[in-house]
Amino acid sequence: MKADTTHIMRDEIREQPQAIRDTLAAEGERIAQFAARLRAEQIRHVLLVARGTSDNAATYARYLFGVVNGVLVTSVAASLFTVYDAELDLGDTLVLGISQSGTATDVIDVLKRARAMGTLTAAVTNTEDSPIYEAAELALLTRAYKEHSIPATKSYTTALAVLHRLAAQWAQDSEMAAALNSVPALMEQVFELEPQIEDHSERYRFLDTCVLLGRGFNLCTAHEIGLKLGECAQVVPAAHSAADFMHGPIASIQAEVPCLLIAPEGKALGSMLELAMALDERNAEMLTISNEPSLLEIAKVAFELPTGMPEHISPLVAVVVGQLLAYHVAIHKGLDPDRPAGLQKVTRTM
Amino acid sequence: MKADTTHIMRDEIREQPQAIRDTLAAEGERIAQFAARLRAEQIRHVLLVARGTSDNAATYARYLFGVVNGVLVTSVAASLFTVYDAELDLGDTLVLGISQSGTATDVIDVLKRARAMGTLTAAVTNTEDSPIYEAAELALLTRAYKEHSIPATKSYTTALAVLHRLAAQWAQDSEMAAALNSVPALMEQVFELEPQIEDHSERYRFLDTCVLLGRGFNLCTAHEIGLKLGECAQVVPAAHSAADFMHGPIASIQAEVPCLLIAPEGKALGSMLELAMALDERNAEMLTISNEPSLLEIAKVAFELPTGMPEHISPLVAVVVGQLLAYHVAIHKGLDPDRPAGLQKVTRTM
Repeated sequence: MKADTTHIMRDEIREQPQAIRDTLAAEGERIAQFAARLRAEQIRHVLLVARGTSDNAATYARYLFGVVNGVLVTSVAASLFTVYDAELDLGDTLVLGISQSGTATDVIDVLKRARAMGTLTAAVTNTEDSPIYEAAELALLTRAYKEHSIPATKSYTTALAVLHRLAAQWAQDSEMAAALNSVPALMEQVFELEPQIEDHSERYRFLDTCVLLGRGFNLCTAHEIGLKLGECAQVVPAAHSAADFMHGPIASIQAEVPCLLIAPEGKALGSMLELAMALDERNAEMLTISNEPSLLEIAKVAFELPTGMPEHISPLVAVVVGQLLAYHVAIHKGLDPDRPAGLQKVTRTM
Repeated sequence: MKADTTHIMRDEIREQPQAIRDTLAAEGERIAQFAARLRAEQIRHVLLVARGTSDNAATYARYLFGVVNGVLVTSVAASLFTVYDAELDLGDTLVLGISQSGTATDVIDVLKRARAMGTLTAAVTNTEDSPIYEAAELALLTRAYKEHSIPATKSYTTALAVLHRLAAQWAQDSEMAAALNSVPALMEQVFELEPQIEDHSERYRFLDTCVLLGRGFNLCTAHEIGLKLGECAQVVPAAHSAADFMHGPIASIQAEVPCLLIAPEGKALGSMLELAMALDERNAEMLTISNEPSLLEIAKVAFELPTGMPEHISPLVAVVVGQLLAYHVAIHKGLDPDRPAGLQKVTRTM
């Protein structure tokens, strides 16, 4: 496979700005109505259920609803219900399922059980009239349209956009809501980094494992970039919160294991700087996705993000660097990123 | 370093049965009183806060309190409070901190904030009169006594024992409570596997990454064995829930990356069997810790657990295999498991 062959995944990465514009234009009003209902019903807890890429969107929502809406957010293991038949007390709770295909069997099962108990249920999905529509009381639809490549890209960032808008409307924070409108243009700025990402990717032709590090709002970005590297490029990903990483896993870091830090400006930046110092002392191969000069300077390979983004929208922008990185490492490895060995677009687990 | 040199870590692994007996004898009554209070106060949610090994104990508690007590359990990122100053609604909630040293700064900070809001707070710790005693209203003390080796072993399994007893007493389930008393003898049976673990460890002399897989009650075991391999043996661990793993990361598995499955009898076994089949198709190097004959047979390297354990106590027994594995891989690599490069016993994060 030649490096100049084009793949659906790359096209879909580049469709993200328009998909986000379409999602906000088409679904904005329904999101606002649902946010009003969350206020009216005085929802105090959100229970998230999701798998794979959608579970990384759920990780974003944990910080978002916690910080912006002050509600307790639980990312529940579906197995609590589907394997162990736990009977949870779900008063004042929204159960929110996320599934791009709308067919994740365990997510649907949890939604159905919760709804049968009289709990408020909703879904975020990219597939109109999919089975999740019957399971949840309300479905919010992302407008990523059909995603053909197996690694999810535009269905992930549009799900993040829906969650962001929902949190902002729920908190009636119009400044926050407006910030999301700048994401498409910021993503387009990231596309300009592609030649540089392609060049640097060759260095990782023989990479077999990679540590991904983020904190707070961008913990999801670390997990999602790791997942893309695993799916497209046969790199075993080890994603950690920067804080947890300092409590043990850092001991396993040698110069041969690259560490990718996702560290845009914001409240989590202090921890990320501290971590970068510790990794530098260990002579780690450090890659950074950042807009903080000292983090760009300390890295072996640095990808510079646009400046001036609020931290809460940065996960939608930073992940694009990682999507392109996973794509180009796959190409250098001679792999087909659109059809990773042994994966299907829809995975069913009970 | 010769393989016959003895280390504190190995002694501490072998002290676990007595530490659990001591913990239950000394703390049983206080646990029962606290469980009565949880019932009296009609606690409906548990918010767990912990780091490192203690965070793996928290993962155990997520399943335990969910399945046994029917409460919603959230493993909260301390950064929600310490970095983002989120103001969460914590009515009907127990905030439970876990810290063997009793000095984890972010755990203490979250406990103090919750207590100042009038929320019920408690701690599980191995260090009497440590700062966590002042932060939480009540501290439950494990009797692992001083742990000298940096990788935590006995402070982990005694914390699991306290959490198990608390869940059983809270549910007033005397059969469940009694099951825990069999753990010390079951651990002693696992010690008999040590010559076999030592032999097999040589195979992993040049191992640099390892995938750890569990589900449900033993998801914590996958994470904890991964952490030990990282701390002692410079192996980059990638731990996943078996269900999440099928949604993407499995694509990165080649024959060169060993996959360790923790799969004792119980409700999660079906998923683990399914996963083993998928890994076998990919010619993965599979290791299993199990008491299910078909999982012992399919593996390249199999460690046989005692049979007849209820699933809810199996994490205390299965982890011992992994502690010994991490220890012996470290010895084969010529590393000192007691003092991993660049780690301290107590890590402070804000």
